[in-house]
Amino acid sequence: MKLSEFGRKFTRNSGILRLMDDLGGALASGSGKMLMLGGGNPAHIPEVQRYFRKRMESILENEREFEQIIGDYDGPQGETSFIEALARLLRKEYGWDIGPENIALTNGSQTAFFFLFNMFAGKGKYGGRRAKKKILFPLAPEYIGYADMGLSTPFFSARKPQIEFLDGKLFKYHIDFSALKAGDDIGAICVSRPTNPTGNVLTDNEIMELCRISGENDIPVIIDNAYGTPFPNIIFTDAKPIWKNNIILCMSLSKLGLPGLRTGIVIADKKIICSISAMNAIFSLAPGGLGVALAYDMVASGKILSISRKLIRPFYLRKAEKALSQITKDFEGIDCYVHKPEGALFLWLWFKGLPITCMELYERLKKRGVLIVPGNYFFPGMDEQWKHKNECIRLTYAQDDRIVSKGIRIIADEVKKAYSRK
Amino acid sequence: MKLSEFGRKFTRNSGILRLMDDLGGALASGSGKMLMLGGGNPAHIPEVQRYFRKRMESILENEREFEQIIGDYDGPQGETSFIEALARLLRKEYGWDIGPENIALTNGSQTAFFFLFNMFAGKGKYGGRRAKKKILFPLAPEYIGYADMGLSTPFFSARKPQIEFLDGKLFKYHIDFSALKAGDDIGAICVSRPTNPTGNVLTDNEIMELCRISGENDIPVIIDNAYGTPFPNIIFTDAKPIWKNNIILCMSLSKLGLPGLRTGIVIADKKIICSISAMNAIFSLAPGGLGVALAYDMVASGKILSISRKLIRPFYLRKAEKALSQITKDFEGIDCYVHKPEGALFLWLWFKGLPITCMELYERLKKRGVLIVPGNYFFPGMDEQWKHKNECIRLTYAQDDRIVSKGIRIIADEVKKAYSRK
Repeated sequence: MKLSEFGRKFTRNSGILRLMDDLGGALASGSGKMLMLGGGNPAHIPEVQRYFRKRMESILENEREFEQIIGDYDGPQGETSFIEALARLLRKEYGWDIGPENIALTNGSQTAFFFLFNMFAGKGKYGGRRAKKKILFPLAPEYIGYADMGLSTPFFSARKPQIEFLDGKLFKYHIDFSALKAGDDIGAICVSRPTNPTGNVLTDNEIMELCRISGENDIPVIIDNAYGTPFPNIIFTDAKPIWKNNIILCMSLSKLGLPGLRTGIVIADKKIICSISAMNAIFSLAPGGLGVALAYDMVASGKILSISRKLIRPFYLRKAEKALSQITKDFEGIDCYVHKPEGALFLWLWFKGLPITCMELYERLKKRGVLIVPGNYFFPGMDEQWKHKNECIRLTYAQDDRIVSKGIRIIADEVKKAYSRK
Repeated sequence: MKLSEFGRKFTRNSGILRLMDDLGGALASGSGKMLMLGGGNPAHIPEVQRYFRKRMESILENEREFEQIIGDYDGPQGETSFIEALARLLRKEYGWDIGPENIALTNGSQTAFFFLFNMFAGKGKYGGRRAKKKILFPLAPEYIGYADMGLSTPFFSARKPQIEFLDGKLFKYHIDFSALKAGDDIGAICVSRPTNPTGNVLTDNEIMELCRISGENDIPVIIDNAYGTPFPNIIFTDAKPIWKNNIILCMSLSKLGLPGLRTGIVIADKKIICSISAMNAIFSLAPGGLGVALAYDMVASGKILSISRKLIRPFYLRKAEKALSQITKDFEGIDCYVHKPEGALFLWLWFKGLPITCMELYERLKKRGVLIVPGNYFFPGMDEQWKHKNECIRLTYAQDDRIVSKGIRIIADEVKKAYSRK
């Protein structure tokens, strides 16, 4: 059978397919078989899971609540009482000038990015004349899951970072504002904060500067806040929750512990929310209702903030520190630099001068039972040759400590072999 | 802010947005306010709901099962054990030559249609040369939710039905095979069976004939089986469950009673299943896991077939007959014809020679607190003028009997007024 352009483009192997296939395959085959340092599955934090279990039990106890959640479609904007509670919470806690008309839900935030990217970039008649616009990533590396979402090509434009070396073989990427312009060919700016894959957290000032640039160009800044503040708050620096009228803030319940329930949250100007609702209706009728039902209580009571601050953040911080300290030891004597872990579930390792590509390293590690993600997938929109792209890997420290520790040991061993055969 | 072509196209008001907005708004505002004969929300069937409630309780009792369902991403093809159980069931019961590699899940079947339509139609290089293909609806009216899914225009091509008048002011649409050709410009054939909105059920022979035509043209037949056999089996004729290699069968757990959990099921050739997985990864990472978890037991045990046959089908059949008999009474003396109800949740009413458009009737009824869907939305791909398109409405009989009855009475009253002011 013959496929359309869309069919060919979206059904070939993509990085995110490989990642999710690895993830699903490894989870389904049981954790004993593969050391899962690849995908972004969040940890099972017992204290947080107890909240969700309790909430589920109380849903079952309430007369007909369970039956309504499973048995009724929500409207295309998403479940109303959750949206109202979230708007109230954000208004009260952070003074954001928002109401229910500024929030829409989607079946996972991945879907929201598909909507948003293609809304603001691609072919169109912009200001009366036909043109093609792109999404600007001001700081590469950026999330692998964006790479294949554009309905036309080229769709993304990414900028090389400035690299700052820090003590203890750490480094940090910065936006190179001197080289950053959002020309006529840019439809929106997008950053993940914390950055997936690096764990970088753009400072409040950097975000403000991006807002300024986008304001000048009448384009939005899309912030992927899947790991960010105020929830799940897997963020180890002093970052403020920020929303303004030209910011489209994309949040998620996945990293709070509900990835299986596919719940994305978009906070934006009400015109954009209307658009998200319209696209929900067309592409999926309505978002699912159980994720928000399980999280409703904690949002209505505001407890989601303290759960994030007191349970989720410390849980991941401890694991990040533990993994980092092992890496410092296991990789001694090798040119291995680690991006300063400021948030998210990942460590980003840079093997300077690695004699093999990170893709080759990925294959070798997979054979030894360790899944990581090769770094070259995280440069959507950056076509230029740059050795750095093939010298990095992303690994997650969200899994059990023993798994992470065993995985790091094998990675160190394999990397040492690669260097020694130089 | 400036929108792309995609942005403009998909964020304007669509029929399906209006329908889902009406549905969500009315459900959220409480059933007392609006008589909901519009959307396709399935009924809450107490016996079926008890199964799901029990299953949820047993999930909570099983050590860590709940935590895994909510806390882990599935792979992009969807949850493995459900897929395996479903393949086993269909193989055993109907002798279909399928395995797990022939089944993928999506976040609702609406999303599957977006994938499939755009895979097989739209711009592309087909057989070496650039062309534009369309999805063929061999029998209009067809489902409102398809209308806005195409990434290019024109995207659909629909054929006028043959109309057969039956006793008791019933009528039935037939495919006009004499006029049906799938030329070079057609990428796939699509039918819903039972048809949404009419409740028509294409006969096994009609399906076979469509398969023959599609085989000749090396294109697939996409069958929207959301209400069909073997589950939820809201089908009142003798229709066989049919699958062949060039059929793409789209099923859903929504009409089984789980619309809030957004679960679509695609059964197709394994190459197509690989494509669906690839698109799941790109557009939504993975399908949600709770719908299939709640239905797993009934699929593994095969009980889903008897539940559909003994509980779901008779429930809707009784309601269909009740609604039809009231219509026969309330509309006496008016030129109101009803499509023979052979399945799905809807009655399709044709007011021959109605002096106002069905759109105007929709507005008048909304003011009187009754929601229906105007028929003109159900002709995607048919641009030609045809009075019939503006003389029909779709109403659902899935709601409480009292609501349906009250609604029909008001519709009859309003339609009589419209005729009398002729």
